[in-house]
Amino acid sequence: MSKILRVNMTDLTATYEDVPEKYRLLGGRGLTSTIVADEVEPTCHPLGPHNKVVFAPGLVSGTAAPNSGRLSVGAKSPLTGGIKESNAGGISSQKIAHLGIKAMVVEGQPREKQLYALRVSKAGAELVPVPEIAGKGMYETNATLWARYGRVAIVGIGLAGERLMTNAGVSTNDMENGPGRYASRGGLGAAMGSKGLKAIAVDDAGVRDVPIKDPEAFRVAAKQLTDALREHPVTSQTLPSYGTAVLINVLSEAGGLPTRNFSSGRFEGAAKTSGEAIAGLVKARGGVGRMGHPCHPGCVIQCSNVVPREDGTLACAPVEYEPDWALGANCGIDSLDDIATMNYLCDDFGVDAVETGVALGVAMEAGLLKFGDGKAAIELLEEVGNGTPLGRIVGQGAAFTARAFGVTRVPVVKGQGMPAYEPRAVKGIGTTYVTLPMGADHTAGYAVATEILSVGGKADPLSPAGKAELSRDFQVATAFLDSTGYCLFISFATLDIPSGFEGMLGTINAMYGTSWTAEDITRIGQEVLRTERRFNELAGFSKGMDRVPEFMKHEPLPPHNTVFDVPDEELDRVLAF
Amino acid sequence: MSKILRVNMTDLTATYEDVPEKYRLLGGRGLTSTIVADEVEPTCHPLGPHNKVVFAPGLVSGTAAPNSGRLSVGAKSPLTGGIKESNAGGISSQKIAHLGIKAMVVEGQPREKQLYALRVSKAGAELVPVPEIAGKGMYETNATLWARYGRVAIVGIGLAGERLMTNAGVSTNDMENGPGRYASRGGLGAAMGSKGLKAIAVDDAGVRDVPIKDPEAFRVAAKQLTDALREHPVTSQTLPSYGTAVLINVLSEAGGLPTRNFSSGRFEGAAKTSGEAIAGLVKARGGVGRMGHPCHPGCVIQCSNVVPREDGTLACAPVEYEPDWALGANCGIDSLDDIATMNYLCDDFGVDAVETGVALGVAMEAGLLKFGDGKAAIELLEEVGNGTPLGRIVGQGAAFTARAFGVTRVPVVKGQGMPAYEPRAVKGIGTTYVTLPMGADHTAGYAVATEILSVGGKADPLSPAGKAELSRDFQVATAFLDSTGYCLFISFATLDIPSGFEGMLGTINAMYGTSWTAEDITRIGQEVLRTERRFNELAGFSKGMDRVPEFMKHEPLPPHNTVFDVPDEELDRVLAF
Repeated sequence: MSKILRVNMTDLTATYEDVPEKYRLLGGRGLTSTIVADEVEPTCHPLGPHNKVVFAPGLVSGTAAPNSGRLSVGAKSPLTGGIKESNAGGISSQKIAHLGIKAMVVEGQPREKQLYALRVSKAGAELVPVPEIAGKGMYETNATLWARYGRVAIVGIGLAGERLMTNAGVSTNDMENGPGRYASRGGLGAAMGSKGLKAIAVDDAGVRDVPIKDPEAFRVAAKQLTDALREHPVTSQTLPSYGTAVLINVLSEAGGLPTRNFSSGRFEGAAKTSGEAIAGLVKARGGVGRMGHPCHPGCVIQCSNVVPREDGTLACAPVEYEPDWALGANCGIDSLDDIATMNYLCDDFGVDAVETGVALGVAMEAGLLKFGDGKAAIELLEEVGNGTPLGRIVGQGAAFTARAFGVTRVPVVKGQGMPAYEPRAVKGIGTTYVTLPMGADHTAGYAVATEILSVGGKADPLSPAGKAELSRDFQVATAFLDSTGYCLFISFATLDIPSGFEGMLGTINAMYGTSWTAEDITRIGQEVLRTERRFNELAGFSKGMDRVPEFMKHEPLPPHNTVFDVPDEELDRVLAF
Repeated sequence: MSKILRVNMTDLTATYEDVPEKYRLLGGRGLTSTIVADEVEPTCHPLGPHNKVVFAPGLVSGTAAPNSGRLSVGAKSPLTGGIKESNAGGISSQKIAHLGIKAMVVEGQPREKQLYALRVSKAGAELVPVPEIAGKGMYETNATLWARYGRVAIVGIGLAGERLMTNAGVSTNDMENGPGRYASRGGLGAAMGSKGLKAIAVDDAGVRDVPIKDPEAFRVAAKQLTDALREHPVTSQTLPSYGTAVLINVLSEAGGLPTRNFSSGRFEGAAKTSGEAIAGLVKARGGVGRMGHPCHPGCVIQCSNVVPREDGTLACAPVEYEPDWALGANCGIDSLDDIATMNYLCDDFGVDAVETGVALGVAMEAGLLKFGDGKAAIELLEEVGNGTPLGRIVGQGAAFTARAFGVTRVPVVKGQGMPAYEPRAVKGIGTTYVTLPMGADHTAGYAVATEILSVGGKADPLSPAGKAELSRDFQVATAFLDSTGYCLFISFATLDIPSGFEGMLGTINAMYGTSWTAEDITRIGQEVLRTERRFNELAGFSKGMDRVPEFMKHEPLPPHNTVFDVPDEELDRVLAF
């Protein structure tokens, strides 16, 4: 029985509601964005009582479909002021789906300052005060909750979220209870913190409420997708062997790896911080180290890793491409150990490691510390954990840090720091950064696939030509994919292998009795984006927000010495449907 | 010979240009806003090389017309991200006008980090490096420049502007070289600082290049206006006797004096911090103390003051209503001495005292210090001067401070703190705050005149009815008035005394050979506002930005227990022309 769990933090109630027919074929981002648009006043304060935080598994989450364990978290963003969805792996999406929960909608605010955990199981849902984990990092929080509730899924916030820092993310635990999976972007952890909700603990023991209309067709389709994932070299070899950080060398080589606060596209320390280097370190150090680590059961790609310290104990799990870059190349830091230490601190404090790295780069530009000084960066990051005034600046993200110190070279769109691809050197992803309703995200319109990896066709990354269309196609397709629960990385296989695409769509059709085609993907993806854009317009954004930071129009980026030159009129066409 | 002085901080040149015909009948705000809209890319970084800072005397500045010494400063605002004009009294507007300068346009940025003064006189204009006043407060800056250049007009920035704090204002000196006149709002001091321009020193010795087409008609009209100002009780008695702070008791009585971060409309310490109390203190202490102090030659109202310390030495000049309220009632502080000390520090550091008081109120709400603790507030303010991380937070204004500490009760519109009238209790001025293109300003649509002071008619301040029209009428008329160089306070006389209005318009017609009527005022005022709105739309704002902070819609304000209930549709109609 599919249902919506409505959690009212004012009355401290958690009640199940029927799913309105209009939400039946929505999941993940499509559902979080629609509920936010339907229920949240766009001009409300994102940390006030009228924002809502929505958690939704994807359409096929909880099934045996491969790589279908993404959880979407949505709200009005405390970072951008616009609508936001961020999704993560980990074990929560499947467990929430197993309980027959299509979405959890958290609303209101406690009358008294108190932190709660929401416990959800077959027996029902209840809010429990958790003063004992107030102010605790995510590692201790997760350990405490497993000790109490068993091997539950945990969706939680660190002290950054409790402190309403607008760079706070939402953690979901992995199979070893590590907190390193994050719906990290857009400050959703602060939105959750503003509700007084420290964690959601989900126990799916004894229940698998995931009805599938045509199980046999589903099985066949899931196998088609699995086979394609096992066939494509990126998903079957590259990613499990080297992890996502394999991109460090690739992007640096392409001149598109933002280095030292987006002042160069090539990092001399790339090799030392690459996926290959991580794999070498894992092999050399042993201990807990591991490549080919899955973030949830049913993952057949296993792109993740566990990075060990020199003594073989845990340094950080995982170190993915984006944090590796943000805390590494973007800060001029080439020590994997320093990067892993910072990444661990981000995961523990509960801040977005990408935004944190961009903020640190800005702080270095401001002269607070030197580019390349890993030890100083770790010290500054510890101030975030300690909540000092300086920590509160950096903990608000890159745009905020820039303003505090008068830095104008600030790589943000709609107040959100740019991820690990330089718009001036990879112009399709740059087009996504600026036009996406959610600020500078890379996953939601990953033109890099075509521009750099030659997946789904080829495009010159340095040319502005055709980038409006390329970004639009990726954004529309991803708005659909983000609604399914599938990991974005299946796209390598579904773009290049027709049976993989058929399998992906086939699982959904088999599960819901639909007969969607590629046209439906476009229709649904466009509708999601329209909903998100409409919310932003009502929230106060006009198309003047869809622009690259000024310095990228004027300052040529080495080594190609190009500027961002996709014309404004082209940008305005991207989502004009 | 009317001309535009273009100051290029990259090339370090200052060159005179002819005035384009389209600018001939523009002055003050009309001219700054038009030049900004014509020359500044709306999506540029406000502290980057492509913003421009424009200084313009009004249409009749430099003449013998009474109270015509306002100087407008315009730019893309570092605080709001939209277009901004802020104007101030002091001696600069007249001197700039005497030199035949219609506007100064400052553009570019120095190639090397260096501070300059722009020296302007009959002999020409030149940029002079001034490393010796870098980092100096405005009091020392002004004293240094007078020692060097004689009794020049000084338009300058304190260390807040040098540090690019987005709450930095632009100071203009008064006849005693005090720096307490500020074009304070919107962070224009940071825009000036980003140009490397510490000060403009204007010497009008030996030149009076202010042509008047019909001198006799001008003389008659100016006298009509002067007579009206001398007749109206507000401009002839109330203001010179008690200063602008006479409003403290009036607004508290009306329940519209924002108290303790906008949590009440009535302040129990009103009487102790009122204009009457200032007058009493001036009388009792003597020394430099003075009421009825003019901010520029030719002022016949003389609403300003010099507040002495207990020993008769200078505490602050002036203490006006807005800073008195911001640093007083809004912080729950009822000591005039503490308020004067803080006001002095704001003037010296170069921050907007209004925004600073709103930021302090937010910091108190966050628990950093207690409401009412003047000593702690002074200490926190000193951190702004010292540039500590905490000082850099507070020095960015109220919205920034709120975000740093997770405060959601933040009285701002478009990122700018609200001045001294509570929107929930004085709904016409609230309507101005939210719809004005420049964020929450009071002067640019002073519906208070009608709602509280019964000038220009009467309106119930607590009722939302008719407030769209009332605000529109005031905004349109003020957009014109802000273009003339006249002080807003002439409106008391021009609204109530027909010959005063005739005199005001008559001076302009006599000077320029126009035959403008009331309809032209509307036409011109509307055009200025249209230009400003268009800039903001291109900069990224939609009408969702024209909204009151959420808490004011839901939280009733004592003592009247009213919320802000002017409907959104009404707000959207205000400037829809």
